[in-house]
Amino acid sequence: MKKTPFVTREQIEEIAKTYPTPFHIYDEKGIRENVKNLCEAFSWNPGYKEYFAVKATPNPFLMEILKEYGCGSDCSSEAELLLSDAVGINGHDIMFSSNDTPPEEFALCERLGGIINLDDITHIEVVEQTLGYLPETMSCRYNPGGYFKMSNGIMDNPGDAKYGMTEAQMVEAFRIMKAKGVKHFGIHAFLASNTVTNEYYPLLAQVLFELAVRLQKETGVHISFINLSGGIGIPYRPDQEPNDIRIIGEGVRKVYEEVLVPAGMGDVALCTELGRYMTGPFGALVTKAIHEKHTHKEYIGVDACAANLMRPAIYGAYHHVTVLGKEDEPCDHIYDVTGSLCENCDKFAVDRALPKIEKGDYLFIHDAGAHGHSMGYNYNGKLRSAELLLKEDGSVQLIRRAETLNDYFATLDCFEVGKKLIR
Amino acid sequence: MKKTPFVTREQIEEIAKTYPTPFHIYDEKGIRENVKNLCEAFSWNPGYKEYFAVKATPNPFLMEILKEYGCGSDCSSEAELLLSDAVGINGHDIMFSSNDTPPEEFALCERLGGIINLDDITHIEVVEQTLGYLPETMSCRYNPGGYFKMSNGIMDNPGDAKYGMTEAQMVEAFRIMKAKGVKHFGIHAFLASNTVTNEYYPLLAQVLFELAVRLQKETGVHISFINLSGGIGIPYRPDQEPNDIRIIGEGVRKVYEEVLVPAGMGDVALCTELGRYMTGPFGALVTKAIHEKHTHKEYIGVDACAANLMRPAIYGAYHHVTVLGKEDEPCDHIYDVTGSLCENCDKFAVDRALPKIEKGDYLFIHDAGAHGHSMGYNYNGKLRSAELLLKEDGSVQLIRRAETLNDYFATLDCFEVGKKLIR
Repeated sequence: MKKTPFVTREQIEEIAKTYPTPFHIYDEKGIRENVKNLCEAFSWNPGYKEYFAVKATPNPFLMEILKEYGCGSDCSSEAELLLSDAVGINGHDIMFSSNDTPPEEFALCERLGGIINLDDITHIEVVEQTLGYLPETMSCRYNPGGYFKMSNGIMDNPGDAKYGMTEAQMVEAFRIMKAKGVKHFGIHAFLASNTVTNEYYPLLAQVLFELAVRLQKETGVHISFINLSGGIGIPYRPDQEPNDIRIIGEGVRKVYEEVLVPAGMGDVALCTELGRYMTGPFGALVTKAIHEKHTHKEYIGVDACAANLMRPAIYGAYHHVTVLGKEDEPCDHIYDVTGSLCENCDKFAVDRALPKIEKGDYLFIHDAGAHGHSMGYNYNGKLRSAELLLKEDGSVQLIRRAETLNDYFATLDCFEVGKKLIR
Repeated sequence: MKKTPFVTREQIEEIAKTYPTPFHIYDEKGIRENVKNLCEAFSWNPGYKEYFAVKATPNPFLMEILKEYGCGSDCSSEAELLLSDAVGINGHDIMFSSNDTPPEEFALCERLGGIINLDDITHIEVVEQTLGYLPETMSCRYNPGGYFKMSNGIMDNPGDAKYGMTEAQMVEAFRIMKAKGVKHFGIHAFLASNTVTNEYYPLLAQVLFELAVRLQKETGVHISFINLSGGIGIPYRPDQEPNDIRIIGEGVRKVYEEVLVPAGMGDVALCTELGRYMTGPFGALVTKAIHEKHTHKEYIGVDACAANLMRPAIYGAYHHVTVLGKEDEPCDHIYDVTGSLCENCDKFAVDRALPKIEKGDYLFIHDAGAHGHSMGYNYNGKLRSAELLLKEDGSVQLIRRAETLNDYFATLDCFEVGKKLIR
């Protein structure tokens, strides 16, 4: 599918007068349409709720938009819990899934009224000791072990994943919790990341629904919700067929009707914890070409670097690049697009066919709306960029300011040398 | 070689009373001995200078220690330049090597009196336009292209690296700069990273020295210094033979006497830009076991995560782990040591043989003294840890405070929601 930027060169030129590049920009319209489609695809399930995976893009303004559609937050740290609460997402709109969890974070989740999704059976005791009781609603994370296969081959290896409990532990956990007064139970599992296939969620649903039936029979608990977690991916490459969320929703419905309904479990609410799918395609890193270099290869240097978007540098991940204003020009030049980090892996594209790039051109690096800014670092003393929102009316709103050197040096503020550095 | 922690369990228990885990701790004694040995190994070269690669560990207190031994700074960003200046490293004690450099950074380097090491020939013009002149001392970065081979096989592929100029460009650059009044010339190259072999530097020296002779002949410039850059690595694994800096220094001397001296260039000063070698083995990430989990594998959960040390998670890099107080116990348990990041790759060790670990045990993660804290990020809302210095007298000094939630939320400080979050 052709990848089309959601802004024009003219728009970016205008925006850059106020907000210098590099910056992340998000497309409000795209985010809204996408979340609407998601909710519609699962509207057949009355209790359905998407818990946005905050780690993907922990920006309060984007979280507020998603909240309008009923989305909650999938949190896994103190900071993410506090951020959710600050935008008014609390109570059962918080799902807290964390491994190696410090007891204080369980306590904070409970204070906010969130649902604790236990990663390990031993955490039952930790939660009970920390709170003095077990909440009425609790969830447990399941790990089936072994390999999880899809029609396109082995996709992931849950048996090697640090998350979740074995089935025997799930049974035991539910029995213990039931005996201790827990009333509403949930099940959660994450089996594969960034799947670009409509069959993943239905396959996962089958695994979880069948488990739910067994668990309910064996333990007599009432399973209130099943959390399909994340894993619905996005097509980073233009030749990938994007997921069709309606087909996915229908696929899950079919399994629901085949497995849960006949077992008398037609009241189970479904949850999802999508992150990448919610914001990934609707965010871009915009950066300016500031340098051209002709040595053993052709290089275009830009003013962003891996500090702004780490995936290409550390995973060799493909992010599509459009040279704004040159959308229709032939891609007859082969470039490495480099950042200024003192690491050779700091390249946004390697051997990429692009139109001829001039200094001053703006590059739109696609699909940076999730796991982009949030994975930013300060290696080499580089600063993380601002986040902007392109609103539906075409105006632009700053939704996170760019880091400054004062931010970078902040953890030296208690020393003499820090006082020299922080102005 | 057996890897021995530079602190005991008792010391860490004492330290943790003031500074809660996780933290990075550095060994002043080790750093001092190591830099002394380095300077000695190259003392045969009167102009020798180590420019510490600041990106490895941009901590002003460590930079000050190295400065006592005459070390300068290898910088590649505004923040690194300012940090160096703040600890009194300036003038020719700064070597500024950057690609895709914004003109303002050239200006800052010149204001501090640093040496500009040009990555690209077109930067001559940028520097001249930015400053209005060319500094009297200038350096150029060389890229030989092709592959760089060592006796243990192909080691790296400079032809695919974004850095440096071709030889033809070096000749042209030197001619242009000479014509424009530059008097003192330097040559720089980086061919391979983290080499754990004594032959890398001498081989690199041969490449650079022969180039220097050709360049001096062809262009008539006076080459004042040759910068061997970084690349001397450290043995992360116990079965690796560490580099012997004396052998390396002697190896370089031999090439110097064979190539430079006969060419009448016996006055050339050598520079190095070591980072990992200077601090890597003398820093550790100390973390506490907070969780044990038995599912499809055996897991030990710790209170640190990839936010504190990213290399194992993103590169699958090996970092040796010692359970403090259990140095002599048999390693008869196989564990994955996990952090709490909501990423399955967040494991400090996979299938690692270790002594039986109890909750509360302190794990000493070796060789985290470089590219450890400096590569930290805030993914999942995690905070970067404090840095401590174990001084020669056994006392401990805080040399960077831990991040707080206020730091994490700082870039939201201009919004209402930020005001709720920042206390």
